[in-house]
Amino acid sequence: MTHSFEQKLNLAATQVEDALEGLLSPQARPGETRRPARLLAAMRHAALGGGKRLRPFLTLETAGLFGVAPEAAMRAACAIELIHCYSLVHDDLPAMDDDDLRRGRPTVHKAYDEATAILAGDSLLTYAFDVLADPATHDDAALRCQLVRHLALAAGLGGMAGGQALDLEAERSDKPLTFDEVLEMQAMKTGALLQHAVEAGALLGKASPAQFKRLSRFGALIGGAFQIADDLLDAKSDAATLGKRAGKDAARNKATLVSILGVDAAEQRCDSLIDEAVGALQGLEFGSRTDVLIDAARFVAGRTS
Amino acid sequence: MTHSFEQKLNLAATQVEDALEGLLSPQARPGETRRPARLLAAMRHAALGGGKRLRPFLTLETAGLFGVAPEAAMRAACAIELIHCYSLVHDDLPAMDDDDLRRGRPTVHKAYDEATAILAGDSLLTYAFDVLADPATHDDAALRCQLVRHLALAAGLGGMAGGQALDLEAERSDKPLTFDEVLEMQAMKTGALLQHAVEAGALLGKASPAQFKRLSRFGALIGGAFQIADDLLDAKSDAATLGKRAGKDAARNKATLVSILGVDAAEQRCDSLIDEAVGALQGLEFGSRTDVLIDAARFVAGRTS
Repeated sequence: MTHSFEQKLNLAATQVEDALEGLLSPQARPGETRRPARLLAAMRHAALGGGKRLRPFLTLETAGLFGVAPEAAMRAACAIELIHCYSLVHDDLPAMDDDDLRRGRPTVHKAYDEATAILAGDSLLTYAFDVLADPATHDDAALRCQLVRHLALAAGLGGMAGGQALDLEAERSDKPLTFDEVLEMQAMKTGALLQHAVEAGALLGKASPAQFKRLSRFGALIGGAFQIADDLLDAKSDAATLGKRAGKDAARNKATLVSILGVDAAEQRCDSLIDEAVGALQGLEFGSRTDVLIDAARFVAGRTS
Repeated sequence: MTHSFEQKLNLAATQVEDALEGLLSPQARPGETRRPARLLAAMRHAALGGGKRLRPFLTLETAGLFGVAPEAAMRAACAIELIHCYSLVHDDLPAMDDDDLRRGRPTVHKAYDEATAILAGDSLLTYAFDVLADPATHDDAALRCQLVRHLALAAGLGGMAGGQALDLEAERSDKPLTFDEVLEMQAMKTGALLQHAVEAGALLGKASPAQFKRLSRFGALIGGAFQIADDLLDAKSDAATLGKRAGKDAARNKATLVSILGVDAAEQRCDSLIDEAVGALQGLEFGSRTDVLIDAARFVAGRTS
């Protein structure tokens, strides 16, 4: 991890924060009656003031490979972050993972109430598509539609939401998931949106089919590595470091690759996914310009918070 | 209400049901990993087998004014119904309106569980935008983007979800809403999506700005009438007729136009909104072709179930 990578990541996070702040302003736009204060405050609690902004970073950096300026990719990047934030709000609900703490702060249903958390999640989800379809995002309507479709596919029943459903089902079942079932569930639950973050950058950059395929593969691989790193973190960390409840996977007897493979083999698998991801980038003709994405892949695997 | 109107409405409901059945098939599409069985079943429970399909009917009939065939408007109409169905699933949750019964059947969280209901709602919501942005919906990408944006604006924090938030807030507050506040809340909570259903038809028909404006006004007016009719139904009906819990507004001391104005004045207001809605159509150059929409407006106000 280079010093300059962390600077880049932090700079992008600041820019994403600013852009989200603009999107979540109290001012209603044409087509909105008004923005109810408490609902908006809950959405802002969920979306502002924290997070590495890894998904938007991947979108911005992938688009950047093709010469797309960060400001031109920013709205699409923010739409993905809105989806990520909605998913955290709903996953934290008592009926789901029942978490009180997120990024060291009370979760939305704790800071507000359950109904407001449900509606804030719904509204963040809905807003993501509003943002994407808006001509301000890109002047090519066909591209905007592609972004909407790809994001909906990544987030919906055949992607993130479906993965969360499979995870909950497994947790409530007597039969632990097999290795392959864990892989599939995780690819849906966390992999799909990370992969989409890279793919969205490729779409914005008008990547060729061959380029798109390699970048998509890169996204899928770092998605897999991310989930292992997250499970390792849960297994080894404590709440103070994590900013959320730790050790909860083991407490729930939850099947993860760490519980199936053990810590050492899981770490090895994570590393080899990253090596493969780096390999997927090396077939691209961008030379050293992919270095940031390579750093990002390593960051995904080696993060400590 | 003509016999032929009810036939038309029922025929459209059958066609909408068929189209939704196709959209909610077990078969994953490209871009989806797979469709988890229990989640899909909950989505199907929410979206299939019931309902007047009033919103899609309005879209189909409005598009029909401009010569758009029902099959060409069907996917856009279904997207609106998916949003409507998601909103019912989430509104019925224990943390929201806490309803056990919907259309005479158990609500989704009763038939499945709360987590599945949350995810089924999320997935229906997400799917609506997938459907709209798909080239199969229309060959004009700019139009598809318009449909996405308009629907998101109608459904999001400045529309339906915001209206539900205001309604819940009022219910939990000591201070009842004023007449104007009830109007605004209802325009957001139920009016916005009904209005959008008409507007979507106008967008599909490439209505002129003047035509769009009149049709939009028509949609807003019948949205207002619909909510009064719904509140009247709740005040006067019983659960057997309604297929859901009745008298719950009064039980919650909820401010509605019926509680503020009384039954007679509310009925009068409903009728005059319908007259105004019919007037908005009369400025259009479609002659007797608007008769079905006029019937629909009267149906909205006079429905008994």
